[in-house]
Amino acid sequence: MPYQNHLIHLLEITQQLTAETDLDRLLNLIVSRTTQLLDADRTTMYLLDQETGELWSKIAEGTMTIRLPLGHGLAGYVAQTGEVINIKDVQNDPRHATRFEKLTGYRVHTMLAAPMRDRAGHVIGVIQVLNKRDGVFTARDEELITALASSAAIALENARLHTQVQRMLDSVIATLAAVIDARDKQMTGHSQRLTEYAVTIARHMGLPAERIEVIRIAGLLHDVGKIGVPEAILTKRTKLTPAEKILMRDHAQLTYKILSTINFSDNLRDVPRIAAHHHERLDGSGYPLGLKGEEIPLESRILAVVDVFDALTTQRYYREPMSDQEALAELEKGAGKLFDAEVVAILKELVAERKRGKDRD
Amino acid sequence: MPYQNHLIHLLEITQQLTAETDLDRLLNLIVSRTTQLLDADRTTMYLLDQETGELWSKIAEGTMTIRLPLGHGLAGYVAQTGEVINIKDVQNDPRHATRFEKLTGYRVHTMLAAPMRDRAGHVIGVIQVLNKRDGVFTARDEELITALASSAAIALENARLHTQVQRMLDSVIATLAAVIDARDKQMTGHSQRLTEYAVTIARHMGLPAERIEVIRIAGLLHDVGKIGVPEAILTKRTKLTPAEKILMRDHAQLTYKILSTINFSDNLRDVPRIAAHHHERLDGSGYPLGLKGEEIPLESRILAVVDVFDALTTQRYYREPMSDQEALAELEKGAGKLFDAEVVAILKELVAERKRGKDRD
Repeated sequence: MPYQNHLIHLLEITQQLTAETDLDRLLNLIVSRTTQLLDADRTTMYLLDQETGELWSKIAEGTMTIRLPLGHGLAGYVAQTGEVINIKDVQNDPRHATRFEKLTGYRVHTMLAAPMRDRAGHVIGVIQVLNKRDGVFTARDEELITALASSAAIALENARLHTQVQRMLDSVIATLAAVIDARDKQMTGHSQRLTEYAVTIARHMGLPAERIEVIRIAGLLHDVGKIGVPEAILTKRTKLTPAEKILMRDHAQLTYKILSTINFSDNLRDVPRIAAHHHERLDGSGYPLGLKGEEIPLESRILAVVDVFDALTTQRYYREPMSDQEALAELEKGAGKLFDAEVVAILKELVAERKRGKDRD
Repeated sequence: MPYQNHLIHLLEITQQLTAETDLDRLLNLIVSRTTQLLDADRTTMYLLDQETGELWSKIAEGTMTIRLPLGHGLAGYVAQTGEVINIKDVQNDPRHATRFEKLTGYRVHTMLAAPMRDRAGHVIGVIQVLNKRDGVFTARDEELITALASSAAIALENARLHTQVQRMLDSVIATLAAVIDARDKQMTGHSQRLTEYAVTIARHMGLPAERIEVIRIAGLLHDVGKIGVPEAILTKRTKLTPAEKILMRDHAQLTYKILSTINFSDNLRDVPRIAAHHHERLDGSGYPLGLKGEEIPLESRILAVVDVFDALTTQRYYREPMSDQEALAELEKGAGKLFDAEVVAILKELVAERKRGKDRD
């Protein structure tokens, strides 16, 4: 292949890598594309563990996971010196870590390796290409792997950043949910449990990943509006007065108001609406809007069923928890009239499945 | 320049673009690099507004902002058809929108334009290169701009995604802060105000951006632990009993515990610790740990001062708000003993500055 075509290929690879934000898929992509571009047999990618100073072979085509102290083996040499190396006779190189060959049975003859550096210039890993298919790695190949390692490092740093921010966002949302539930000890873990039920049902119904994610976030945050209800009412041990009931019901509308102030990303823009309708009932007797039947989004109908199920099966100030069977019987009484019948049926199935799983243990 | 060098240049540009996560800097980078790569006089980048279907010239070197309905003008033609166009005589092209030339006085002779597409293949904008420096744009240039538009689109989508998630994260954190404050009506807006004071002081002290961001997040979330204090105690109108005082003080420790469950990104890993120490005092009389002097992180010393300042200057159940001057006098009494003297002095300066600003209005 002429050099020019290699460059075009490299550019395409760079675009592919930087378009991938999922870390695992990205690592696999880097490895497979490197082998292809350099016409080699295999690629191993090592990532530097900042804390231990060790190199880990995160992705090694066809081999086991390798762990190398910095400075050990050829990859360790590259990580330590930051040099690109092109070895034409690996077996006679004293830096070569032969013990892995004995373990894997894979023999390396030629090797090209380059460091990956982050924006700050620190080595974050090493790409190591093994056994050129035809002859030895050339000076051109050294240029190609240098450029490729640079693209890979950028893509890797972006994906890590993205993953970090996503994890942080997820845990802040979980904290917000926990803080809301924490105002009433009997609600501890309610939003988390409701969300697990709801997501399992949505998966079972075959909803697409994007809608499931909306359900997940709306589930975690459905009770945010309860912040407007005084704790004295939330934890009251006797029947609520009509005025207190109104205050309590206001939480659904307030959930909508509070969630509307969050800058949800485009794919989550329905979260406030879905969360707001978790107390609607099919016959229009729910709140805040008294929507009927299909006017209530499917996502909210799912939340409504699992909300009631979790409420019935946990301790309340004014009553003992029901068993799963009793709670399901209650929901079935209202199926088609108050609650989505399909959702109730799926919940019943899932509860039975879970019970079978527990009985087996 | 031979084609090969153009490809290497294009690869470098792609790496630069994809390494840039700040949207504004990215847009400028795309435009300047395009002009350079294609040896042209100017580049205009149009972004498609999904809602109105109009193209906006987000970045136009040396010209005014242009707004084009989809299908109008040459850029509008490219956005609508998805074609790359290479016009050798713009003045005689009927699609050319001449009115902008009249306004700007800039005359276009040759033009190369390509659509930018997102991962889903939808056109999200147009890159338009104006007036080749030497002759006309070639077939090679068409290939280059096609590849460049693709790199630019990936970088743009990544930066937008990053910006969206960051904005979402910011607003969820603000909601968490507001929810905590909302449990006690007299604390409405407390965390937000405290954070504004703290960030202003930190800027004034010349702290680096990364530390200021830690202060900002720690400020917003410093009272999260108050979720463990019953509302009846938070809003008590009379003096707290010793047992209630202990419960109240526990909130600092609980803030640490709750924030430790959040997966903060690396740059924010100090947030739980900084937030936990916002009630420490220089002489060791504070809580939760009774740290002394420099044992208390500077960031926490800043939070301590502004926390007291905001508490003194707002209404409390048991007293009227103090004036800014009275509150500063209180803080000055404790400066060096309880509170960081430099922080108190800067706060005094900032309050005086703000007052001068208000007096002028």
